[in-house]
Amino acid sequence: MTTVGILGGGQLARMLALSGAPLGLRFLVLDTAGDACAGQFAPMVVGDYTDQAALAEFASKVDVATFDFENVPAESAQWLAQRVPVFPSPRALAVAQDRLAEKTLFRELGIPVPQFADVPTREALDAAIAAIGTPCILKTRRLGYDGKGQFRLKSAADADAAWAALGAQAATVGLILEGFVRFERELSVVAVRGRDGEFRAWPLTENWHVDGVLSASLAPAQTDAALADTAHAYARKLAEALDYVGVFALELFCRDGELLANELAPRVHNSGHWTIEGSETSQFQNHLRAVLGLPLGDTRMLGTACMLNWIGQMPGAAPVLAEAGGHWHDYGKSPRAGRKVGHATLRAGSANELAAALARVGQALGRDAQVAPVIERLG
Amino acid sequence: MTTVGILGGGQLARMLALSGAPLGLRFLVLDTAGDACAGQFAPMVVGDYTDQAALAEFASKVDVATFDFENVPAESAQWLAQRVPVFPSPRALAVAQDRLAEKTLFRELGIPVPQFADVPTREALDAAIAAIGTPCILKTRRLGYDGKGQFRLKSAADADAAWAALGAQAATVGLILEGFVRFERELSVVAVRGRDGEFRAWPLTENWHVDGVLSASLAPAQTDAALADTAHAYARKLAEALDYVGVFALELFCRDGELLANELAPRVHNSGHWTIEGSETSQFQNHLRAVLGLPLGDTRMLGTACMLNWIGQMPGAAPVLAEAGGHWHDYGKSPRAGRKVGHATLRAGSANELAAALARVGQALGRDAQVAPVIERLG
Repeated sequence: MTTVGILGGGQLARMLALSGAPLGLRFLVLDTAGDACAGQFAPMVVGDYTDQAALAEFASKVDVATFDFENVPAESAQWLAQRVPVFPSPRALAVAQDRLAEKTLFRELGIPVPQFADVPTREALDAAIAAIGTPCILKTRRLGYDGKGQFRLKSAADADAAWAALGAQAATVGLILEGFVRFERELSVVAVRGRDGEFRAWPLTENWHVDGVLSASLAPAQTDAALADTAHAYARKLAEALDYVGVFALELFCRDGELLANELAPRVHNSGHWTIEGSETSQFQNHLRAVLGLPLGDTRMLGTACMLNWIGQMPGAAPVLAEAGGHWHDYGKSPRAGRKVGHATLRAGSANELAAALARVGQALGRDAQVAPVIERLG
Repeated sequence: MTTVGILGGGQLARMLALSGAPLGLRFLVLDTAGDACAGQFAPMVVGDYTDQAALAEFASKVDVATFDFENVPAESAQWLAQRVPVFPSPRALAVAQDRLAEKTLFRELGIPVPQFADVPTREALDAAIAAIGTPCILKTRRLGYDGKGQFRLKSAADADAAWAALGAQAATVGLILEGFVRFERELSVVAVRGRDGEFRAWPLTENWHVDGVLSASLAPAQTDAALADTAHAYARKLAEALDYVGVFALELFCRDGELLANELAPRVHNSGHWTIEGSETSQFQNHLRAVLGLPLGDTRMLGTACMLNWIGQMPGAAPVLAEAGGHWHDYGKSPRAGRKVGHATLRAGSANELAAALARVGQALGRDAQVAPVIERLG
């Protein structure tokens, strides 16, 4: 009997546990919140990620550890890795936790990135703005996600306001200035690499964000094959450079038909939720297969699929359940503004069928705006 | 938040819970064994199905109740049904629990059945043998499954031995004599009926048993469409007569191209496990949708699929995981002779591909005999 420990007990841990159960696995989740939604289907240790006693209890009960949450302190990950195998490695986690290290690695690997500069001081911010130009975005190097810890500068005159908002964090988590990319599309590669180095990727996915939070994903992305090949090659290069084990997502911008790497997420990813029904093997099961050294599952698609995120509160399930290819995912969370509480995946045999299903669901749920860009792309 | 109570905590309850989690459901399992495998993913009440205190605790914590195990005493089901909605109804359960009531209903509905006779006494056994002829099978009316509680008679001279084996049960669970059917195929319809009467069935499935226990299932069964239509019509007639709510299986024999009803299983069924990956909606999720009054999911197939049961102990997973369409299900049970401990499902786009995958898996696991009849059928 193998017990997989998961640091973080949100919906990713929950879906990992549900998808790993058929492999005969057991799970143990460590989370700071006793009501974390993964705890509805897996036993928990409740404690802070820096709590030695909690970490020790967790380590003593698991055979291997992985993450639902990438901002686990690097020291905690390293402490754990001295006691049980941890995948992805603390090193890969550390790179992904730091926008500066991440973008520096992208550049070293020949993966195009938007312009960026380290911003340790107020003076460095002025220099960075002068070098990169505006518009640009000041971001925390660590701990930001879903648009948190970011300040957009329209012109150099916004430097004071940006520093007022984030400057205090220069000395703690660090700051980075990034050129603003006027992209045509946001894409992501969700991929998996095994302990033995085997690499597999799901088809390229297109994503739409609202207020910095993922709203919809479409797979396969409606792009030419060469662009998808390039994206997959970048993901592979990155995984190999990090000796990465498990599932990760590489978020990309597409501008003037060229790809620019935005971010590495060292875990199963929201833009891969469609793989549960839309692919032969889900990102969740393949992550576990990778972490355990089992053969990786096939990443081929079953038709075409669109995932719609539910933020804040769940809409009514019936319109999705009534669709032939409609699949519902309620994370069992209580409603809260901005919180990811669930998603739906619509799968269809063709782009036309998928667009029609999206139109019906969008109308029934009063969410035409959410489905509109996907329908337009499928059109 | 809706909590679904499940009477019985085996692999069916486990797969119900795993498949219902995405609907935002919680589960509570009642089982006599504290280590029942569903308890790895759902909270449990441990107690006998006739234990009033356990039943009361269970009833107080669930919004609706259903079954993993059809031999829950009818009185317990009725007691529960006075406190919470119970699906399928205790009446449907009672009919399915009693081979005599079940076969009598089949006959009343015009569904062909093998010859049968009630055997309340030793004298009645002689009369029944005379009427039905040999070979025939003496079975307990209740509590038998997977070949337990059965005695096959080759000739009238076996009557004493049959009575010695099962006669004591005539006064308790009752006995029935059934004509032995020299069938060409065993088939099953797995179907679902909603609270509103909506009926859906998965494609007809062919099954192979070894020592009375399911060994392999193939879907869709390689039969002509008319036979499948007839089987589906029988299932629908039966569901409507019982005002059935939930998933059930109708097991059928095919002899000389004609169907004979063998048994009604009032629950999700081993011959429907392939629906997890082989169909748009699994039997597990559709059972829950039916029980909760949600729209039923599509029962169309995704390709063709074969399920292989693992009995006694789990074989190595790698050969199945290495197949593009290979899916593994380890129930988290300890090994025991005759025990269903897991299954695998192989899915493919065509019969030829499926046969090739089965041949590879059979060879790698030393289970050529298990896959041979399925490969022959696909050939």
